[in-house]
Amino acid sequence: MAVAAADGRGRRPRGTESGRRWQEVVDTAAGVFYRSGYESASVNDVAKALGITKGSLYHYVQSKEDLLYAILREMHVLNRDNLRRATESEGTPLARLRSYFVSHVRTNIDYLEKSSLIYRELQHLSARRRRDIVRLRDDVEFLVRQMLTDGIEERSICPLLDPHLASIEMFSTANAIYQWYQPAGPHSPAEVADSVADFVIAAVACSDGAGRCFRHRDEAVAPDA
Amino acid sequence: MAVAAADGRGRRPRGTESGRRWQEVVDTAAGVFYRSGYESASVNDVAKALGITKGSLYHYVQSKEDLLYAILREMHVLNRDNLRRATESEGTPLARLRSYFVSHVRTNIDYLEKSSLIYRELQHLSARRRRDIVRLRDDVEFLVRQMLTDGIEERSICPLLDPHLASIEMFSTANAIYQWYQPAGPHSPAEVADSVADFVIAAVACSDGAGRCFRHRDEAVAPDA
Repeated sequence: MAVAAADGRGRRPRGTESGRRWQEVVDTAAGVFYRSGYESASVNDVAKALGITKGSLYHYVQSKEDLLYAILREMHVLNRDNLRRATESEGTPLARLRSYFVSHVRTNIDYLEKSSLIYRELQHLSARRRRDIVRLRDDVEFLVRQMLTDGIEERSICPLLDPHLASIEMFSTANAIYQWYQPAGPHSPAEVADSVADFVIAAVACSDGAGRCFRHRDEAVAPDA
Repeated sequence: MAVAAADGRGRRPRGTESGRRWQEVVDTAAGVFYRSGYESASVNDVAKALGITKGSLYHYVQSKEDLLYAILREMHVLNRDNLRRATESEGTPLARLRSYFVSHVRTNIDYLEKSSLIYRELQHLSARRRRDIVRLRDDVEFLVRQMLTDGIEERSICPLLDPHLASIEMFSTANAIYQWYQPAGPHSPAEVADSVADFVIAAVACSDGAGRCFRHRDEAVAPDA
């Protein structure tokens, strides 16, 4: 257990014994926080779940908040990496945007407990650490709005939508996975990732290939709105 | 303050002095639960916010949970009424579905604090009362899936989507309002209700009028999915 304490950014070298052990600490803490709620859970609960003493756990972290920060940072770094891969991929803005949402939803499913902590427990971080997490999130949202704007210019995305509201609406759908997805339920992770990505892309796409879509026919389909 | 205790379903005659006072109790409790969280708030906090004694508040309710139940029931009855009005309105399934989501989002905005309590505090109700609320919600979701199925039959809604997943995706978007809407922000309630309703309708609509949409062109726009 002779491992240097976390570097304050929640990162450890991967692939080393130290890195693997740190990841085990973070993963176990996420399970404990998910089941008990962050406020109710104690450092001792995490130590017990790891089968070590509280004193040994303090070799890794200085506080319970260090663990929450490491979990939230891991998820936001995964999210940023998903976006990078999508923006560097081939294809139209619409195809890159779909590719991002497939990987983002898949990450939310593969890390269901950790993704729920993002939305339920962010307020428990210190102001400085919350700013760090929110900055990572803002960077991703900025690039998604940029892809929406690019898609509007090339006429594959509806020019009638507001990229700011549209990106909120897309993330509202994709980030709610933890509220309803049942791993033992009828839908596979791949099926749900495709379904949610199709939903958010169809919602913003101008699907007739000539920059026209549902929103241009508002009067015809929704006379009472 | 000589008013009969709640009838256990959170209902009082409207328009009477007793009904108005009961509504004030429920509205005030919602504000207190929203600001402090249901678990941290006490019956005494609600009494203080009303400017009455705890003993006087017990003329209206027997427990803190009675207040939470009354709030959640009020919101779900509003939601059911929104859906009834939409299903009885003129127009295609797509127009009725849009009309429902405009009113549902508008209700979520107009009752922002109460709508956040639905998603944050439902687990604090007793099993019996939670079942009552979930039954109201299930009735609404059943009818939304029915409208999706009707729309698929008349070719205005994409036949490639799964009505069960689609209804979850639509509600994920519409129910996240409390997480991001700022009453003092740049978007009016009407603007957001229209934007979110357009988003969820565009997401499920087959917009070329011949039962074809974005999902039919998956191969072309998303080769990497």
